[in-house]
Amino acid sequence: MTDLDSSLISHVGIAVADLERSIELYQKITGQKVTSIVEVADQKVKVAMFAAPSSARHPGGRIELVAATSPESPIARFIARRGEGLHHICVYVDDIEKRLKDLKASGVELIDETPRVGADGEKIAFVHPLSTNGVLLELQQKN
Amino acid sequence: MTDLDSSLISHVGIAVADLERSIELYQKITGQKVTSIVEVADQKVKVAMFAAPSSARHPGGRIELVAATSPESPIARFIARRGEGLHHICVYVDDIEKRLKDLKASGVELIDETPRVGADGEKIAFVHPLSTNGVLLELQQKN
Repeated sequence: MTDLDSSLISHVGIAVADLERSIELYQKITGQKVTSIVEVADQKVKVAMFAAPSSARHPGGRIELVAATSPESPIARFIARRGEGLHHICVYVDDIEKRLKDLKASGVELIDETPRVGADGEKIAFVHPLSTNGVLLELQQKN
Repeated sequence: MTDLDSSLISHVGIAVADLERSIELYQKITGQKVTSIVEVADQKVKVAMFAAPSSARHPGGRIELVAATSPESPIARFIARRGEGLHHICVYVDDIEKRLKDLKASGVELIDETPRVGADGEKIAFVHPLSTNGVLLELQQKN
């Protein structure tokens, strides 16, 4: 790996109830700025993303604050069940199709057996928390 | 920021019950290797760390698997209460003393009001989950 794609973790998603207030708080904590807020209609969420290093081709190690836009959103159900908190992590993989195939062959339960397109246009897939120590894990293709 | 310290997140800690099994699984999932297992006696935990990019001065975006070595460990209590899963995130900050002072002044509840020394010799401090949307947040001084 080169310096520019040296980060294993793409981002960590934090489920929050009040997006505006959480943005203010996490900007204070991290000293970084939220640079975009994206609405993902099919997930019924709004996602606030912190600035990525401008030089990185695969910017890693970012925080995303995720808030529900409807009570039927998976994020609303998560918060109702467990409260606000760490929701998922996303890690980069080199060949997502191969990784999914290998994981399935070794008995890991997948939410997505084939990749779908994420909010930023990259190929992503989710692994089931039952197979990953309770962690909702997203894989993202490194392009 | 330069490429070498471009990652906001230092690491994400995952609480696991069976360290050996989890190492095997996460090596499969990420395609990376665990390079060291450190026992932190005062926390009663063993921590398995994934390889950091060799060129990075402040290696970011790593996963740490954390297992209890005693039923009195905070990790054992976490798993008993919530099950295995995402336990904490650690973000780099430029001036940890100043950040802690500013956060306290703005009403954020801190676990550590002054930094202490982490497992890898860096200055660290924890922010209370009550103030951070349920997230156990560790700050780490970027040296």
